[in-house]
Order: sequence, then C-alpha cells, then structure tokens
Amino acid sequence: MSTFAPPDPDYATRVQRSFAEQRAMVTIGASLGAVDPGAVDVVLPFREDLTQQDGFLHAGIVAAVADSACGYAAHTLMPATARVLSVEFKLNLLAPAVGERLEARARVIRAGRTITVCRADVVAITGKEEKLVATMTGTMMTVV
Amino acid sequence: MSTFAPPDPDYATRVQRSFAEQRAMVTIGASLGAVDPGAVDVVLPFREDLTQQDGFLHAGIVAAVADSACGYAAHTLMPATARVLSVEFKLNLLAPAVGERLEARARVIRAGRTITVCRADVVAITGKEEKLVATMTGTMMTVV
Amino acid sequence: MSTFAPPDPDYATRVQRSFAEQRAMVTIGASLGAVDPGAVDVVLPFREDLTQQDGFLHAGIVAAVADSACGYAAHTLMPATARVLSVEFKLNLLAPAVGERLEARARVIRAGRTITVCRADVVAITGKEEKLVATMTGTMMTVV
Amino acid sequence: MSTFAPPDPDYATRVQRSFAEQRAMVTIGASLGAVDPGAVDVVLPFREDLTQQDGFLHAGIVAAVADSACGYAAHTLMPATARVLSVEFKLNLLAPAVGERLEARARVIRAGRTITVCRADVVAITGKEEKLVATMTGTMMTVV
Repeated sequence: MSTFAPPDPDYATRVQRSFAEQRAMVTIGASLGAVDPGAVDVVLPFREDLTQQDGFLHAGIVAAVADSACGYAAHTLMPATARVLSVEFKLNLLAPAVGERLEARARVIRAGRTITVCRADVVAITGKEEKLVATMTGTMMTVV
Repeated sequence: MSTFAPPDPDYATRVQRSFAEQRAMVTIGASLGAVDPGAVDVVLPFREDLTQQDGFLHAGIVAAVADSACGYAAHTLMPATARVLSVEFKLNLLAPAVGERLEARARVIRAGRTITVCRADVVAITGKEEKLVATMTGTMMTVV
Repeated sequence: MSTFAPPDPDYATRVQRSFAEQRAMVTIGASLGAVDPGAVDVVLPFREDLTQQDGFLHAGIVAAVADSACGYAAHTLMPATARVLSVEFKLNLLAPAVGERLEARARVIRAGRTITVCRADVVAITGKEEKLVATMTGTMMTVV
Repeated sequence: MSTFAPPDPDYATRVQRSFAEQRAMVTIGASLGAVDPGAVDVVLPFREDLTQQDGFLHAGIVAAVADSACGYAAHTLMPATARVLSVEFKLNLLAPAVGERLEARARVIRAGRTITVCRADVVAITGKEEKLVATMTGTMMTVV
C-alpha cells in the first residue's frame, strides 16, 4: 500500500491546500488526518446536526468524508498541476454511524494515468474501540 | 412508475415527519418536494459552504440528497410502522453540480418485502434550464 | 436518448464487427439486437447450462450481456479508431432471471470525451410478457 | 477475517454441493478453491472462448466468478437450510484479465441476519506471479 512513488514531492502540501478549499468539509467539521502516498485519512467528530432520523450520521455525510479521502488519496499520486474529479463511488453501509468520531481511511488500489481506483473504510471510534461502519469503492479521474 | 399502491394511506405525512427529523437535511438546507407512492423529490438550494475545491457542490452533498430521496421513495411503500435503512448506494457524477438549486428525483424500480431498489436522478436547475448532474442506484431495506 | 450524433457514420458496422470478436458472447449464445446512436440491445436465449443453483440465469451471465450492451452503446458514440474499455459497473438483481430469453437494453446517459456512463435494463421475455430482472449502471472509457 | 463462527458445521459440504449445481460455473470451467468460514475462492483457468474483443477474459465472466465466490463466502455463515441470493454487486476492472488462470478471493466484511456484504479481489496468475485485475463489493441476502 505504501509502495507508491508520488510524482510531486510536495503532494502533502498540495492536498492540504486543496482540502482547505473544500468548504463542505469545513461546514461539517471534517479535517485531514494522515496524508501519505496513496493513503489519506479524513476525520469527522460526531455532530447531532449531521444525523438522519435515527440519530446516526447521515449516509450522505459518511459518503462525503469517504469521497474526500478517496479523492485526496488519488491526488497524492498525481502530477503537481493535475486536478482530481470523482467519476463515481459506491458506499455500503455496514453498521450505524455513531461514536465520538468517524475516520475514513482511503487507499489507492490501482493508480493509472487517467483513472485511479480507491477504497475507503470508514470506522466509528469511541474511546479505544473502533467499528467498521461503511466501505466505499470509488473511481477518481486525473484532469490535466 | 405511479402504479404503486402504498400499504399506509398516510405515507406522505409519515415521510414528512421523518424527513423533518433528518437533522443533516436541515443543516444543509434541503427540503422535501413532491411525495408520491414510490416517488420522492428532495430540493437543495445552492450554497457556497457546501462546495468542493472547484466551487461545485460536494459529491457527498449530492449523495446526501439523492440518498434521502431514495430512502423516502422506498418509505412511501412500506407499512406504517416500518423504518427504512440504506444498505448501499452508488452515485455516478455526470456533470459539475452548479446552478440555483439541485433536485434529486428518486423513483422505486423494484419494491420487495425486505429490499427496495431505487434510482435517483439529480438535476441542477438554473432558471428554466435543467441539467442531469448525477444518478444514483440504491438498495433500501425495510426494518420492522 | 436518440439525440446523439455519432462521430463515425459507420458505427453500426464497427459495433457488429467488434461484437463478433467477443468470443464470450458466442460461447453463451448472445447476439446483437438493435444498434442505434447511444443505444444497443443484446439478446440471450435462456440456456440451462448458464444457470446458478436455483435454475435462474447466473448473475455473472446477466452482467456479461448488460456489460457488452453498455460497452457497445458507448462505442456507437466514439471515433472510428477508438476502443472501449469497461472501467466499472454495478448490477442490481431485481427478480429471478428466467424466461425464454433475456434482453439487455443499454442507453448512454452521459457521453464525454474520455468517460461515458451507460444504464442497461435487463428484461426477461416470455411470449409477449416482459419483466425487469436487473439494472446496471456502468462507466466506459474511450481508449485512443 | 477468519474469526467467523459458522452456524452450520457442515458449511463446506453445503457450499460444495450448491456450487456443483451452478451449471454456469461448469460451463465456463470454474471450480471451488479454499472454503473457510467467511472466505471462499473460485478458480477459472483462462479460456479463449471466454474473451472479449481484445483477448482478455470478458468482464461478465470475471463478474461471474467473483459473484459466485461472494455468494458462497456469505453462504458459509448461514444456517443449514438457508439459501443465498445476490442483491447487487459492483465490479471495478483494474487491469486486463489475462494469465494462466483467474482466482476470485471473496471475504465477508459484514455478516448480518439478512444482509451479508462481501468483497472479492480477482487476481490473474501466471506462473508464480499474480496481479490484481478486478475487485468486487457485493450484497448477499439470506433467504430462509
């Protein structure tokens, strides 16, 4: 997983700058975690104003953090001037998204010139316990 | 599409009440549109604080309104006491999500006792013009 | 759906020639139906040697005809020298795939320079009756 | 992954018997590999009569072995009298499916009473070398 060689040595700065421009992430209170070649984490503290009717985090909010994580995991492996676009993603909801915070852990599973495929596991963390609540597979595109 | 006979005649009231409890929808400013048997629309006025790095609505926000629309389209066909859960969804992003507002139009394509499959087309509307920006297929589960 | 202008006027011949080279289609007995700009049908007569354990056509066989239909629907809108590759597809199984024959009806819902998104509805036909048994959304790539 | 406790101690026999009834698997020449709780492999020797127009194994054939592997991985964790049905699956094609044989390795990532979610990685093997060519996420249903 960590064997990717990023073409842009400043990939982390570039990801941080772009993430800061995702106003939706600011609005929901998400922040970047670890940023490594082909691997990006996004963290979301639980907030009651982001829930669905049962008090779990809304599936769309789960999708938002997983998609951002996937996009930036792909972005770490792109040239300095490239933009990244989500082509599609699929999210399986595995358990109620409740806990102190969510963490979406995206990993590139295939990096191509145009198409990069990522997987993100989303865990809910409470104290030292974590539980897998969702998993995403997404297709990201390099736009030059 | 409109040939579904809802088992609960008060389906619309039930959907409206549940939607109002989706605090994430309130937070992002989404509201219910038309609610018919097997067909629910959700409307989201454009807001800059919900965008990604290019100024388009974030794919997770698009997913959120499409998922809510799918869930409630399924919910219209469920018994009065049932709850609805998203099992999974897949979203294809087709064009930048920009405009005055988004509208997610979910339609049930197969209603079963346990599993209901929905499709939602998401259009961006500006004046009288609308453009398809995303499409979702989702699997919803009846929980009794 | 029929408003696409194919860049290659010989799209139908090109699709027929390429389909004939899909040896998997020959092996399972599938054939091309209608070929129009952005719309291709593939027909598969029921065969017991293609079933799963309950006597329905195997979901992978359903996927095979839907994927070929999607790929060639995309192909009709590509330049004469382009190849088409499946990036990903998702198939929802809606009802048992039984009947005299299957028909996968693929339609392009977004044609881009690199990425084309298609939907295929798969119906099982018995006499004059048809039933929707599966639906696919797929992402196809133009390779030049 | 191997911490699942199968409710039916004869799960392996049950899977083998059911797999033998999947006539599509016999037709394409696929066979069962390892069968463990929550983990099933399916092997497919390369055959030219299963290819698409470029000489790679057809994506539908890749889907067929991955779907069977997912279904039986789920089946190992079901009660003795239960049947398994595929609700949906998504397949990402990552590299051309060429080699001496394919192996689809399915693992349960969430086992529920009604819904089981599996992932299958499909590798192409040539000599001692293997390459990831596709990955599937699928939703399987227990039918009692």
